[in-house]
Amino acid sequence: MRRGAASAGHSKVPADGAFMDQALGLAIHGVRGANPLVGAVAVGRDGKVLASGWHRGAGTAHAEADAIANAARGGIDLTGATMYVTLEPCNHTGRTGPCAQALIAAGVSRVVYAIDDPHDAASGGAGTLRAAGIDVIGGVRAGEATELNRQWLGAVAARRPFVTLHLAQTLDSRIAAEDGTSQWITCPESLADNHAIRARIDAILVGSQTVAVDNPRLTARTEDGQLADHQPLRAVMGLREVPDDAAVRGDDGRFVHLRTQDPAAALSRLFDQGVRHVMVEGGARIIAAFLSANLVDELIVYQAPTILGSGKNAVTDLGVRTLADAQRWTWDESGGGAVRRLGCDLRLHLAPAAHPDAAPHDALPQEGL
Amino acid sequence: MRRGAASAGHSKVPADGAFMDQALGLAIHGVRGANPLVGAVAVGRDGKVLASGWHRGAGTAHAEADAIANAARGGIDLTGATMYVTLEPCNHTGRTGPCAQALIAAGVSRVVYAIDDPHDAASGGAGTLRAAGIDVIGGVRAGEATELNRQWLGAVAARRPFVTLHLAQTLDSRIAAEDGTSQWITCPESLADNHAIRARIDAILVGSQTVAVDNPRLTARTEDGQLADHQPLRAVMGLREVPDDAAVRGDDGRFVHLRTQDPAAALSRLFDQGVRHVMVEGGARIIAAFLSANLVDELIVYQAPTILGSGKNAVTDLGVRTLADAQRWTWDESGGGAVRRLGCDLRLHLAPAAHPDAAPHDALPQEGL
Repeated sequence: MRRGAASAGHSKVPADGAFMDQALGLAIHGVRGANPLVGAVAVGRDGKVLASGWHRGAGTAHAEADAIANAARGGIDLTGATMYVTLEPCNHTGRTGPCAQALIAAGVSRVVYAIDDPHDAASGGAGTLRAAGIDVIGGVRAGEATELNRQWLGAVAARRPFVTLHLAQTLDSRIAAEDGTSQWITCPESLADNHAIRARIDAILVGSQTVAVDNPRLTARTEDGQLADHQPLRAVMGLREVPDDAAVRGDDGRFVHLRTQDPAAALSRLFDQGVRHVMVEGGARIIAAFLSANLVDELIVYQAPTILGSGKNAVTDLGVRTLADAQRWTWDESGGGAVRRLGCDLRLHLAPAAHPDAAPHDALPQEGL
Repeated sequence: MRRGAASAGHSKVPADGAFMDQALGLAIHGVRGANPLVGAVAVGRDGKVLASGWHRGAGTAHAEADAIANAARGGIDLTGATMYVTLEPCNHTGRTGPCAQALIAAGVSRVVYAIDDPHDAASGGAGTLRAAGIDVIGGVRAGEATELNRQWLGAVAARRPFVTLHLAQTLDSRIAAEDGTSQWITCPESLADNHAIRARIDAILVGSQTVAVDNPRLTARTEDGQLADHQPLRAVMGLREVPDDAAVRGDDGRFVHLRTQDPAAALSRLFDQGVRHVMVEGGARIIAAFLSANLVDELIVYQAPTILGSGKNAVTDLGVRTLADAQRWTWDESGGGAVRRLGCDLRLHLAPAAHPDAAPHDALPQEGL
């Protein structure tokens, strides 16, 4: 309301919350993983949107940097503008430059953000901005921004990687026929989508049983069968030995055997090796272990229009005995959307539903709402 | 091409096939069941579309009658027009009047249709039209029209009802938890959709085991809980006795116990009682029996975003041992579409894929293509 009141002489300028809503709406276009979903909107003194952007995933420009770049491409001067961004601008130089410096260089006079960056290394962006004379407000739409990245914030707090679970199943949720055949349940488009995800994550994890049965390579390959530029660390979990000639070992040193059956221990080991986003690909025992430990942040299901009627269930015993205790999920519209046709398959994208007892917003500032 | 050549003086008039394609495109809006999907387009002498229509399901206007009614509503005269319709116009008075007479009364001078009506009672529409001096051509886009109603044509030829299979399942394809609880796996919107289907079908079928466990009423109810105007016949299949006080018996006489475990025998009995569309609702044994007998024409799946990990699988042994023998389905865009969000659930709509060895089009005329 502060801003609206200050806009005499112009048509009514939307309040900060409305611009932050726009930024939140942009954030959803990004993909989940090592980094949170973040959106940014740059607004001029007259209340007009000058530029916007969003973060497309680890290794790509941060949202505010994307907005600044978009403004530059359009020859738009951001001097004196307000930047709305759903996460506190970073202060560190990671794979991309520090956003606080970029905002200072762009000449913005005001930065409004939703939630603090939870990382130690990245925090302090607000302080840097203030030291440069920029008016900084945090906590606008903090509840919504927290909810948007609920699972990611939880993973960061727990010092574990963000976990994507991949399922390729039939309509009746089988991942292999009775004789063990499973290649391929899904169509080439789904396989290509899976490989595109492999090419942007830090690690891929399967059980040692899967290695014994399927001997997968677990490489990220392009549609023409070539190795992608980025290869995830190939992690095998379980007490069973990984044969010396297992394809998963490869010859690039990007292989690790995690001798544990405990998902939390496996994630901790991977985190210590720098892994911030891991995709779990099976088999059934590993899937059940991660699900029953509530250690899945994102579920991507490729569902083929086929029925087996027997064979291996995708999900086995989670300890749920009655319907009221079923695990609840919500459709996740981020990235490619919650539900879409992909070749002959269906691609489903879900996030764990918030536990009914949880009240994650209570701990956060609710200013400006 | 014949028509195109006759259109001197006008801009090029599309060939019959193009208008039939439009009619086929309209047909897909209808719902499957006792009647086939049918579309109709009325075209003036100048090649302009004057009116169109489609059949919305048993008990509603046929496609060409819908198009004639739409023309009348718009004050459009169909004298001298060509009616394109994807099924031979009927000649009989069923729940709706005979379409051949309606076309004669509307003054159309030409009727182009795709495939013959396979019913004895309905056939002869083409003869009636010709006797009235109308130019009649059959067989245009016959292959496409046959494919559109492949399952319905097969049911008519086999003298059995069209079979819709209803599944309400979790993401991991369970229809009940380990303790047997199953009410409700899906959300109120899915239940309402299911009841809307019940209110337009001839019969609903469950196994006697389901009656013993769940004691369902199997009535069609509106969203406020009232009985719908139309109630399907309630059929229970299986050798187990149906208790005298079972809810499914009701008090309206619309109940039948089919003392058989053979889906084909059950369908034959229902057909003899006038049932042309039956929805199979479970349980697991009945579902598997119909699927393994290839007696499902349409599959409607309500998929909740929940995971149980144990309990009852929706589909049990179909005799499939290896992935190559999996039952294959195709996404069906008719009615409400192949895939849509419905409340918190997903609604999937599928049809059996054509058997790779089948060549259903070979037996039909392929004129005008």
